[in-house]
Amino acid sequence: MNELNSKLLERAVTEVGKLPGVGRKTAMRLVLHLLRGGTDEVEALANALVHLKREVKYCQVCHNLSDTDTCPICADKSRDASMVCVVEDIRDVMVIENTMQYHGLYHVLGGLISPMDGIGPSNLQIDSLCRRIETGGVKEVIFALSSTMEGDTTAFYIFRQLEKIPLKDVELKYSTIARGISVGEELEYADELTLGRSIINRIQYNGK
Amino acid sequence: MNELNSKLLERAVTEVGKLPGVGRKTAMRLVLHLLRGGTDEVEALANALVHLKREVKYCQVCHNLSDTDTCPICADKSRDASMVCVVEDIRDVMVIENTMQYHGLYHVLGGLISPMDGIGPSNLQIDSLCRRIETGGVKEVIFALSSTMEGDTTAFYIFRQLEKIPLKDVELKYSTIARGISVGEELEYADELTLGRSIINRIQYNGK
Repeated sequence: MNELNSKLLERAVTEVGKLPGVGRKTAMRLVLHLLRGGTDEVEALANALVHLKREVKYCQVCHNLSDTDTCPICADKSRDASMVCVVEDIRDVMVIENTMQYHGLYHVLGGLISPMDGIGPSNLQIDSLCRRIETGGVKEVIFALSSTMEGDTTAFYIFRQLEKIPLKDVELKYSTIARGISVGEELEYADELTLGRSIINRIQYNGK
Repeated sequence: MNELNSKLLERAVTEVGKLPGVGRKTAMRLVLHLLRGGTDEVEALANALVHLKREVKYCQVCHNLSDTDTCPICADKSRDASMVCVVEDIRDVMVIENTMQYHGLYHVLGGLISPMDGIGPSNLQIDSLCRRIETGGVKEVIFALSSTMEGDTTAFYIFRQLEKIPLKDVELKYSTIARGISVGEELEYADELTLGRSIINRIQYNGK
């Protein structure tokens, strides 16, 4: 589609078209839909996005997205603080929560180690995970990462880092969610039942 | 997906999920993409939408979307003002403009007659089309509407309305865009109705 007559329309279509998976034709369809609707609706959408971006916080403990300094999961005393589930991003927290099979805490890395995309360990929340483990109280680290090369690399890297930490009286257990999800499949698209079972059937790294 | 922990996120996902063809999972993916990007990008998107909605105008003549009172097409003196192409919405203007085969003017109805959706002739820009014809100067009305029941009904209704208009010295011509098999389409995959119509409306080689 060529440059549009209306500069206002052109700008809106260009901005919407920057979203992932939204081409120029889809962007046009979405913008025309908004044009047909009320001004209120457009402003509600715009405000929701700007407010989210400006005001959103990340949990100081687990780096989950939160409206408060400490997210409701970390703040929930009824949860098992001896288990930490390491995930790639906040979507993974949501899907695992939806299975209702896990009652421990999380640690959101914010990505996976991927040299191809220029993401190294320092770009992820790995240091803060080490500090959480050093502080003590954690007995088990569960890796719930995508079953891809990046996921496996990240889990192995973190495992090696955590092994270096001297811990008194506690032997840290490591596990990974069962490979119930197919190899190459991304975590966020797994169905809740499979994901739930794969958490229950997590496999101990050291065979204990 | 259940209610989200973060109210800010929940609100953004709900608003984005109201867009046509965007489900809750897609909305979440789009919102998280915006979260990962800069504040500038989110504000650019939000501003573009709000500005478009607040400041956009519709051409007084053809009801095409425009930044000015009269759209660039209607204002262009080099175009053939004796032809008016009747289309459903502004997207149709764009696709026809992109063909670069039409040099007349347009008339954007803003929809099609559809009793099922509660859209009658009074909801469309039909009266203003009648006034354009009454004013004189138009020699041909081209219907470029969808080949659906709604499109055919709308064209027939408008045709009947325009026929009632008394015109001096001019016999108004009516035409509709050709229905036939697409360029590059294989004959065996064309549907029977389209193929039938393309045989009835066959074009003589010698232009007679």
